[in-house]
Amino acid sequence: MADYQAPLRDMRFVLNEVFDAPALWASLPKVAENVDPDTADAILEEAGKITSGVLAPLNREGDEQGCKWNDGEVSTPEGFREAYQTIVEGGWNGLGGNPEFGGMGMPKTLVAQFEEMMQAANMAFGLAPMLTAGACLALDAHGSQELKEKYLPNMYAGVWSGAMDLTEPHAGTDLGIIRTKAEPNGDGSFSVTGTKIFITWGEHDMAENIIHLVLAKLPDAPKGPKGISLFLVPKFEVNKDGSLGERNSLSCGSLEKKMGIKGSATCVMNFDGAKGWLVGEENRGLAAMFTMMNYERLGVGIQGIGAAEASLQSAREYALERIQSRAPTGAQQPEKAADPILVHPDVRRMLLTMKGYVEGGRAFSTYVAQWLDISKYSDDDERRKHAEGMVALLTPVAKAFLTDRGLDACIMGQQVFGGHGFIREWGQEQLVRDCRITQIYEGTNGIQALDLMGRKVVGSQGKLYELFAEDVAAFIEENSSDENLRPYLEPLAAAFERLSDVTEHVINQAGDNPDAVGAASVDYLDLFGLTALGYMWAKMVKAAAPKAEGDTSGFYSGKVKSARFYFDRLLPKTVALAEGIRSGSGSMMALTAEEF
Amino acid sequence: MADYQAPLRDMRFVLNEVFDAPALWASLPKVAENVDPDTADAILEEAGKITSGVLAPLNREGDEQGCKWNDGEVSTPEGFREAYQTIVEGGWNGLGGNPEFGGMGMPKTLVAQFEEMMQAANMAFGLAPMLTAGACLALDAHGSQELKEKYLPNMYAGVWSGAMDLTEPHAGTDLGIIRTKAEPNGDGSFSVTGTKIFITWGEHDMAENIIHLVLAKLPDAPKGPKGISLFLVPKFEVNKDGSLGERNSLSCGSLEKKMGIKGSATCVMNFDGAKGWLVGEENRGLAAMFTMMNYERLGVGIQGIGAAEASLQSAREYALERIQSRAPTGAQQPEKAADPILVHPDVRRMLLTMKGYVEGGRAFSTYVAQWLDISKYSDDDERRKHAEGMVALLTPVAKAFLTDRGLDACIMGQQVFGGHGFIREWGQEQLVRDCRITQIYEGTNGIQALDLMGRKVVGSQGKLYELFAEDVAAFIEENSSDENLRPYLEPLAAAFERLSDVTEHVINQAGDNPDAVGAASVDYLDLFGLTALGYMWAKMVKAAAPKAEGDTSGFYSGKVKSARFYFDRLLPKTVALAEGIRSGSGSMMALTAEEF
Repeated sequence: MADYQAPLRDMRFVLNEVFDAPALWASLPKVAENVDPDTADAILEEAGKITSGVLAPLNREGDEQGCKWNDGEVSTPEGFREAYQTIVEGGWNGLGGNPEFGGMGMPKTLVAQFEEMMQAANMAFGLAPMLTAGACLALDAHGSQELKEKYLPNMYAGVWSGAMDLTEPHAGTDLGIIRTKAEPNGDGSFSVTGTKIFITWGEHDMAENIIHLVLAKLPDAPKGPKGISLFLVPKFEVNKDGSLGERNSLSCGSLEKKMGIKGSATCVMNFDGAKGWLVGEENRGLAAMFTMMNYERLGVGIQGIGAAEASLQSAREYALERIQSRAPTGAQQPEKAADPILVHPDVRRMLLTMKGYVEGGRAFSTYVAQWLDISKYSDDDERRKHAEGMVALLTPVAKAFLTDRGLDACIMGQQVFGGHGFIREWGQEQLVRDCRITQIYEGTNGIQALDLMGRKVVGSQGKLYELFAEDVAAFIEENSSDENLRPYLEPLAAAFERLSDVTEHVINQAGDNPDAVGAASVDYLDLFGLTALGYMWAKMVKAAAPKAEGDTSGFYSGKVKSARFYFDRLLPKTVALAEGIRSGSGSMMALTAEEF
Repeated sequence: MADYQAPLRDMRFVLNEVFDAPALWASLPKVAENVDPDTADAILEEAGKITSGVLAPLNREGDEQGCKWNDGEVSTPEGFREAYQTIVEGGWNGLGGNPEFGGMGMPKTLVAQFEEMMQAANMAFGLAPMLTAGACLALDAHGSQELKEKYLPNMYAGVWSGAMDLTEPHAGTDLGIIRTKAEPNGDGSFSVTGTKIFITWGEHDMAENIIHLVLAKLPDAPKGPKGISLFLVPKFEVNKDGSLGERNSLSCGSLEKKMGIKGSATCVMNFDGAKGWLVGEENRGLAAMFTMMNYERLGVGIQGIGAAEASLQSAREYALERIQSRAPTGAQQPEKAADPILVHPDVRRMLLTMKGYVEGGRAFSTYVAQWLDISKYSDDDERRKHAEGMVALLTPVAKAFLTDRGLDACIMGQQVFGGHGFIREWGQEQLVRDCRITQIYEGTNGIQALDLMGRKVVGSQGKLYELFAEDVAAFIEENSSDENLRPYLEPLAAAFERLSDVTEHVINQAGDNPDAVGAASVDYLDLFGLTALGYMWAKMVKAAAPKAEGDTSGFYSGKVKSARFYFDRLLPKTVALAEGIRSGSGSMMALTAEEF
C-alpha cells in the first residue's frame, strides 16, 4: 500500500481558498491571539510530518499485535509508547485546548485538519489523543476551577490521558438506565461503583495517569436521563502538589476482541468504590457531555474521511501501477503486456466516488468546524447563536454521513485492488475494519439520524433547517451570474429544493404520527448529506474554476472535473431517497414481531 | 448470536409455491429419474440438520484458529476434518454430480438450497465442497472419458477434493497474460511449471488427494486468452487400479493472511514440472471453464445470500431481546426498563432491508437455478437454447447483485447490534469479513457488470435482454386483473420500463463510444438486480397473498408486508441509477492521471 502522505495541498485549498479561514480567525479576537496564517501553515506542515512519519508506519503492526491485558495492566503494541511520547513532546494533545490551562488555543478549523491526518495515519492510536481532547473539553466547560487547575495542564500536555466511561452492558444508546452509582463521601468526593464497557483507551501504558469521566447515578437521583451525573475518576489520585498519590480502586477487567482498531484498547472498566469528583451540576451529567459531543462527533466523522483518504491514496497508486487488460478504446501502453487499470471507466468510477466523498467531506468537516469556532469564540451574541444552531443541525450529518460514505469509500478502495485487497499485507482491508467502528460509536448513525430529524429539524419546527437553507440559498443567489458555476448550481438548487420539500413533508407528518421521524430519519440524513456535499463541491468549483486554465499541476482542473462527476453520478441518489421517505412509515410498522 | 437454523420454511415456499419446482423436475426426464418431491424434501431436511448441527458450530472457532502451514503441509482448524468426513459420508459433495460417475444427479434448483445452507453455516468450510463441485463440472463437461472415470467417482464422493488454479501474481482479471507453462512429455501427459496464487483449499488435510485444474500455456500457444489450456494436475498421481501413486511435484508455498474466510486455506501453489493431463482441447482452456463458471458464479451469489441470512437470523433475535429506549408511540413493555429495539422504526428498516435482499435473493437464485436446470437437462432444443440465454444474462446479476446486497445486509445486521456488533464473540462482524470476499473472487463484481452490460446485453444487441423482458412482461400481463397484485405490478412495470429504456440507451451509446459500456456497467447491474428482485417479490406476493388471511404463523402475511417495504423503499433506487447512467461516460473519462 502507498505510504500515507498528509493531503496538505487539499487542506490548504479548503482552508484558504474555499473558506478563507484566515479571515475567520482574524474576526474572532480570542482565536487571533493564538494563530495567524503562518503559524497555521507551520502547524499543518509539522502535523503532516509527524502523522506520516511517526504514526502511519505503526498502523499495520499495531493491528497485528493489538493490546495485551495482563492482570489489569494493558501493554500497547510495539512503538506506540514512543510515538505517544513524540505527540506529547510536540504538544499535540493540547492543540485546541484552553490556553488558561496550558492548551494552545487553536481553532477547530485548523485542529480538524490535524485530526484527519492522525486518524488517517493510525486510527487505533489516534483515539488516545482524541479521547483526551474530548475529556478536556467537558472538564473545561463544566468542571470547577479547582478540578481544571489540577487536571487540565497535564491532560493538555498528554502526560495524563483521558477516557469517557458511558456505556454499560445493558445500556448503550439508552444511558437513562445505567446502574453505576456514586455515593457522597462527605468530604466533597464520591465513591463510584459499577461496570462500564467499550471504554476506549480506558487502561494503557502510554501515560502516567488516566482521567476517567464517568456517568453515574447519585443516591435518590430521578429515574432516566435526568438522573445522571458526571464524575472525574482518576486512575491515580493526585496530591495537592500535583504529584501522583494512591492508586484508585478502578481496574480494567478485560479487553474486547474486535473487528478493527485492534491497536487500541477497548476496556471493560470496573469501579469498586473508586474516588471521584462531580463535574458540573448534580443530575446534569448528560448535558455536560453535550458540549464535548459536538466536537467528538465531528471528530468521528473526520475519522471516516481519514480512513477513506488513506484508502484513496493507495487505490490511486495501485490503479496507476497495476497493469491488467486493455483500455476499451484500444491499447494505451502497447509496449507493455496490458494497460494500467486506471484506463478502465469502472476503476475511475470507484476512484471518483471516493474523491467525491473524501474531498467533499473534508470541505464539509471544515465548514462545520467553522461554525464550531464561531459558536465558541465569537463575542457577537447573535453571530454566536446562529453558529450554535448550525452546529446543532450539522453535527449529526457530519458524524453519520461522513462515516457511512467513509466506509463505502474504503470498500471501494479495497475493491480497486481485486483479490489483493482482501489480503492483510496490502492494508486496504484494515481500513475497512477500522472505519466500520465509526458508524457505531459516539452514538450509532441511526441515533445521529434521529437526532437530526427528530430533535433538530422537527424539534425546532424547521427553524434550524432554515439557517442552513438560507446559507445555501444565499450562495446560489450570489453566484447566479457565474458562468463557471451555472452547470453546478442548477442541480444543486434542484437537490436543495427536494431536501426542503421533504423536510416540510416530514415535519407535517410528525404531528400526527410518532413513527414518522424514525421512518424517515436515516434516508433523510443521507439526502441531507448528499445535498450538503453538493454545496461543498459547488463552493470548491467557485474557488478552483478561475485557476483551472493553464494549471499544469492538474489540481484545480482535477477539482472541477471531480465536481462534475459528483453532480452527474452521486447527487442523483437524492431523487430515490426523497421518494422512499415520502412512502412514510406504513410499510415499516405494519409487521408484527412474528411476521419478521 | 443466534444458532443458525436453515430457513427450510422459506426454501420450501420458494421451491414449491413460487416456482413449482416439482413440475419443472417432472418436465425434465433426466432429472425426474433422480428426484421426486418427497426425496427433495428429505434432502432439504437432512441438509438443514447437517449444516446447522455440524458446520455452523465450527464457524467461529474456524475463524479464530485459521489454517496452519508447516513445510508445505496445511492443517485445518479443529473439527474441520471430522465435519468433512460427515459431508463425505452423506454424499453431499456429489449432490449435483453426474450419476454415470457416482453423482446423485440432483437439479441445481435443489442443490442451490443446500449450498445456501452450507455457506450460511460456515463459508470457509463450504468453499471446499463448492470448489470440488466446480472442478467436477468442468471435468465432466470437458474431460476425456478416461479422466472422468479415473477422477470423478472419488471427487463426487469427496474422498478427493478439487481446486481451481487460475490466478497468478500479475494476472487476475486478465488471464490472457498468465505465465504458467505446460510442456508435453510425449506420453500424453504434460509437465506444468509456474506459480498460482489465491488458490482456495489448494492444500489441506481433509481429503486423501487434491485434484487441481490448472490454466497454463502450451509451447508456441497464441498470445492472450486464446492460448490458454486447462490441465488436471493431481497432488498424488493415481495408479491404474485407482490407488494413490507418487507425490506430484507441486506444493503449497504459503498461506495468505486474509480479512475473512480465515478457516479456509488460500494457497500460493508452486508447480515444478508437475505431471498433468489436458482437459478439453488445446488453447480452449478458458472456454472449458465457462460451463463451470455459470454454476460457480451463481454459487458465489448464493454465498452472499447465505451470509446475509445468518446475519438476519441473529439480528432478528437480538432486536427481540435487547431492550433499549421506548417506542416512539409510548412504552410497549412498561413493566421493563425499556422496550425491545424492534419497536423502533429504524431497526425495522434495517431488518426489512435485509429481508428484502435475502428473501428476494433466495427467490432470484432459485429462478436462475431453474434456467440452469433447463439448459442442462431439457431435451427440447428450443427450450434449452432459451434457457441458455437466460443463464448467460442472469448469472452475472446473481453473482454481483446478491453479493453486493449480501454485504450491505451483513453490515446492517452488524449495525442492529450497536457496539456489540463490532465485538468478535457476537459473530456479526465475521459475517461482514467473510461476505466481503464474495464481491471479489470468481470475477470481481466490476467484471460481472462488464460481462452483463458488454458481452451479454450490448454483445447480443439486446437479444438476451429481450428474453428476460418477455418473461417479466408476460407475468405483468397475466396478472393484470389480480387485485392483490396490482399495487406491486404498477411499480414493477415502471421500474421495468426504466430498465428497458436504459438498456436501449446504452446499446445506442455503445456504438460510437467504447467507454459507454464500462461507464454504465455497475450502475446498470444494480438497476437490473433491483428490478429483477422486484419481479421476484411480485411473484412471492402472488403465491403468498391468497394464503395470508387467517395465517396464524405470520409467514404469508409477513411475506406480503415485506414486499410492500421492498417496493416502497428499495425499488425507488432504480430512479437514481437510471439518472446516473444517462449522464454517460464524460465525467469519468475527463480526468488525466494527474488530475486524480
